Parts: sequence; structure tokens; C-alpha cells
Amino acid sequence: MSSEPTPPYVAVIFTSRLNAATCRDPREYEEMSVRMEQLASEQPGFLGVESARRTDGTGITVSYWVTTEDAVAWKRVHKHREAQARGRTEWYESYKVRIATVGREYAGPD
Amino acid sequence: MSSEPTPPYVAVIFTSRLNAATCRDPREYEEMSVRMEQLASEQPGFLGVESARRTDGTGITVSYWVTTEDAVAWKRVHKHREAQARGRTEWYESYKVRIATVGREYAGPD
Repeated sequence: MSSEPTPPYVAVIFTSRLNAATCRDPREYEEMSVRMEQLASEQPGFLGVESARRTDGTGITVSYWVTTEDAVAWKRVHKHREAQARGRTEWYESYKVRIATVGREYAGPD
Repeated sequence: MSSEPTPPYVAVIFTSRLNAATCRDPREYEEMSVRMEQLASEQPGFLGVESARRTDGTGITVSYWVTTEDAVAWKRVHKHREAQARGRTEWYESYKVRIATVGREYAGPD
């Protein structure tokens, strides 16, 4: 996290499965992912992003935002829309987006 | 997901960083992770779990539950408590748990 907010704040949970072609050669996809994380970090209300992917192509990215409106505004940013379109047509076999409100949190080990 | 719930439901976002020793030899940790995912799937209110980890040891596990009470009850299951204790003392450099309510979701490509 680029800052340490206190709840409530918004988490966008993006789970995806890359298609076979992208698993074989993920370079363009990975370059775009890096660019989108950078661009996200410049948006109003951005709190942080965490991302991990399994070798089978299943990935989880969670981005954190001050408000739902901030998360929705990021979805509509032009270059992000272009990346989403390429994701749908070129990279993802499937994906799911969940918009959630973080109500409680704790960290460890203490 | 083992079922397809409709919002609202609960997502527990567990992000962690393995310590160096666990990164070098993650076998015990991974065996425990598999056992805990199995045990979680047997608990009341369990909806599903998704997990991914980076080669640098950073991981994200999101488990989904019908209610916050279901998620809290899972945290208190005896064998899960034992696993949490080993996580704190043996496996994790750091971790964070966020309890969130999923309010909206969508999937693709359509």
C-alpha cells in the first residue's frame, strides 16, 4: 500500500485467468500490467495495489481506493479502457471484478 | 468459487510475505495451505477461495463467506488457529487481513 488508510475504504478484487497464448508469451500483457499499475497510482483516491499470479495463469489483483466513485472513475480512464478492451479480446480467458468495502483490518505478526 | 453467490457477501483478503527461510523451502507451508483450504471449504458459510503468490514471496488469498460471522468463526477453528500460530512464528515475515463486504460484481468477457 502506498499509504495506510483506515477503514472504511474500497477494495476492487480482480481475479482472472490468462488464455493459453498469453501464458506462453505474457510479455505484452505484463508490460501493460506494469503501465496500468503506474497509471492507477496517479488517479484520485488511489490507495495501493497488490497483485500475484499462479503459474497456471490464475491471477488476483486487488486495488484500494478511498471511495467507490474513485474506483469507478479509474475504470473509465481512457487508456485503462483501451487496456480492458485488449484484455477481453487478447489476454483473458475469463475474469471477475468484485467491488467491496473494507470494514475491518489487522496486521501481523505483532 | 464453489458456488455463485450474489452480493452482498463477505471477502477476507489475506495478503502476506513469506520469510526468506520459507521462500527457500516452502514445502511445509504449502502442505499446510492445501490442508487449510480444504478445511475452510468444510466450514459453514464458505463460498470459495482463490490464492496466488509471486516468486518474491508476496501472496494474496481471498476467501468468500456468506456472513462476517462465518468468516470470524473460521478464524477461530482450532486447527486453523494452530496454522495461524505457525504462520506467525515460522512462515510469514508480515501479513495483513482485511474483512470486506462485496457489494457489486461482474464477470467477462461476455
